Amino acid sequence: MSTPPVAIIAIDWGTSSLRAYALDAEGAIVARREAGLGIMVVKDNAFEAALISVISDWLAAAPEADLIMSGMIGSRQGWLEAPYVSCPADVRELSAGMAALTLSDGRAARIAPGLSTRDAAGVPDVMRGEEVQILGALEAIGDRPGLVCLPGTHSKWAHLDAGRVIDFSTHMTGEVFDALSQHTILARTMDAGSPEDDQAFEAGLARAAEGGGLTHQLFGIRAAGLFGELSDATSRSFLSGLLIGHEVADVLSNPLEKHKESEVCLIGNAGLTSLYAKALALHGRSSRVLSPDVAANGLYRLSRAQRNEHGAR
Amino acid sequence: MSTPPVAIIAIDWGTSSLRAYALDAEGAIVARREAGLGIMVVKDNAFEAALISVISDWLAAAPEADLIMSGMIGSRQGWLEAPYVSCPADVRELSAGMAALTLSDGRAARIAPGLSTRDAAGVPDVMRGEEVQILGALEAIGDRPGLVCLPGTHSKWAHLDAGRVIDFSTHMTGEVFDALSQHTILARTMDAGSPEDDQAFEAGLARAAEGGGLTHQLFGIRAAGLFGELSDATSRSFLSGLLIGHEVADVLSNPLEKHKESEVCLIGNAGLTSLYAKALALHGRSSRVLSPDVAANGLYRLSRAQRNEHGAR
Repeated sequence: MSTPPVAIIAIDWGTSSLRAYALDAEGAIVARREAGLGIMVVKDNAFEAALISVISDWLAAAPEADLIMSGMIGSRQGWLEAPYVSCPADVRELSAGMAALTLSDGRAARIAPGLSTRDAAGVPDVMRGEEVQILGALEAIGDRPGLVCLPGTHSKWAHLDAGRVIDFSTHMTGEVFDALSQHTILARTMDAGSPEDDQAFEAGLARAAEGGGLTHQLFGIRAAGLFGELSDATSRSFLSGLLIGHEVADVLSNPLEKHKESEVCLIGNAGLTSLYAKALALHGRSSRVLSPDVAANGLYRLSRAQRNEHGAR
Repeated sequence: MSTPPVAIIAIDWGTSSLRAYALDAEGAIVARREAGLGIMVVKDNAFEAALISVISDWLAAAPEADLIMSGMIGSRQGWLEAPYVSCPADVRELSAGMAALTLSDGRAARIAPGLSTRDAAGVPDVMRGEEVQILGALEAIGDRPGLVCLPGTHSKWAHLDAGRVIDFSTHMTGEVFDALSQHTILARTMDAGSPEDDQAFEAGLARAAEGGGLTHQLFGIRAAGLFGELSDATSRSFLSGLLIGHEVADVLSNPLEKHKESEVCLIGNAGLTSLYAKALALHGRSSRVLSPDVAANGLYRLSRAQRNEHGAR
């Protein structure tokens, strides 16, 4: 079986790991690799050596392939800073914001910029790396209005319309969960090794919809534990439901979220996306799960936009 | 100068410290002492020895004085458990819920119960120790409707009416502040040694009143730091304003909070109560600060109610 020619070498390079995709001219994934060489792991800015250590054979076999990267590699702490592009933005604007660099052997490479936005009060928000997954979701959404969610430590929610990222917001939900479950009195009422408990998670979602406020509802976990009404084995799932329930309600009450009937695209691992799907369903919103590999499609779109732009000159 | 006779020896005994008050028959404080002998410090349940080590002279000099205690000393981990009394409750019901014990020398002592409540959804809330400060606030509030706030690690807000504690809620604001400022990415943008910054605190209060939700607003602290719009020296105060702003808005939107014109009684140290006073003022609510020593007045009321009850037999 012959391998199709590699047209694009695309690198999704974050703080803790690096994912490399070899793509053909239509954006199909020919090969993929992953290494724990995130930018916080690579010492002394030896990014080129790190890249070569992972894909030297790809680079040699496809000398004409477009080499593009995205993620924290384009941050101030990365290889070369690619300043944020402001929302609303489409793939052309993101492509135009790519930072160009040259490898030691003379090969050209480009790094995608992050996205920034400001809310009505002027408060900024940023993402770097997630924008290529969001661009990849256009494969599923097309030109229709859409809402994309990348749940995680810092969940990202992006509002799309006509192929553009109109706006987005970041929610520190995963990190708040970790801090509260490990570094407050709630840690004493939580059995860290317990499996996810669907019923407790749904009880947490329901609790989030009630009044009183989050910091009060958090203490309720402690009080319910004292009265034997929430067990150490299930209180972690309850907390998870409480926080995700607040996050989803906050996002869906955003005035930008006008297309109440549209399906939400969830990008992430199966466990986390299924929790968000439940929270969305409680608000009557359907959702579909996309693989994190949509990043490859987003990088393909960036590469093609760059090529089209060059062609138009 | 002769010392007035001591009628009541009142002990406010929490997890980390013990505050002892010698009161005359009218509840005036004749003497006070404090020791770092909280119930988590005392080993092997040697509570009687700990008490004697602090006030043996008071006990000897006033053998007829009523000896009462409150706080975590009445918890399962304390000297003797005094089960929670349910809201609504007044001083008589709290007094009737006191647990009786006898010291080695035959002297009687009593320990105040905590208070519990359940919200509309049936979720429990508890306090233990704060109820004597809230009873003490009746000195200022009388029979009028009133709102009492004890800000801190776990802030308590109590709704009073006709001398009764109608309901209350606990908010984990202080502990959430510590967890977020020390154990999330926000720690990197915070200079822990910086003094309180009034302007940043007020900006945090204002931010809390805007949309987007708390976990999103938390990430805004990080993003504003990246753009140089919030300094490491002021972001702690901003976070404090954000969390206290949410807490106060949540409490004031409680349907129980019908008496929008009543002054709020704040009980606590000067620094923290002044922050809450600012947050309340933003909602048009005036407040006054009471000394934590109002606990002595609450204990006096408990002692007197007990005496009255005995007298009525």
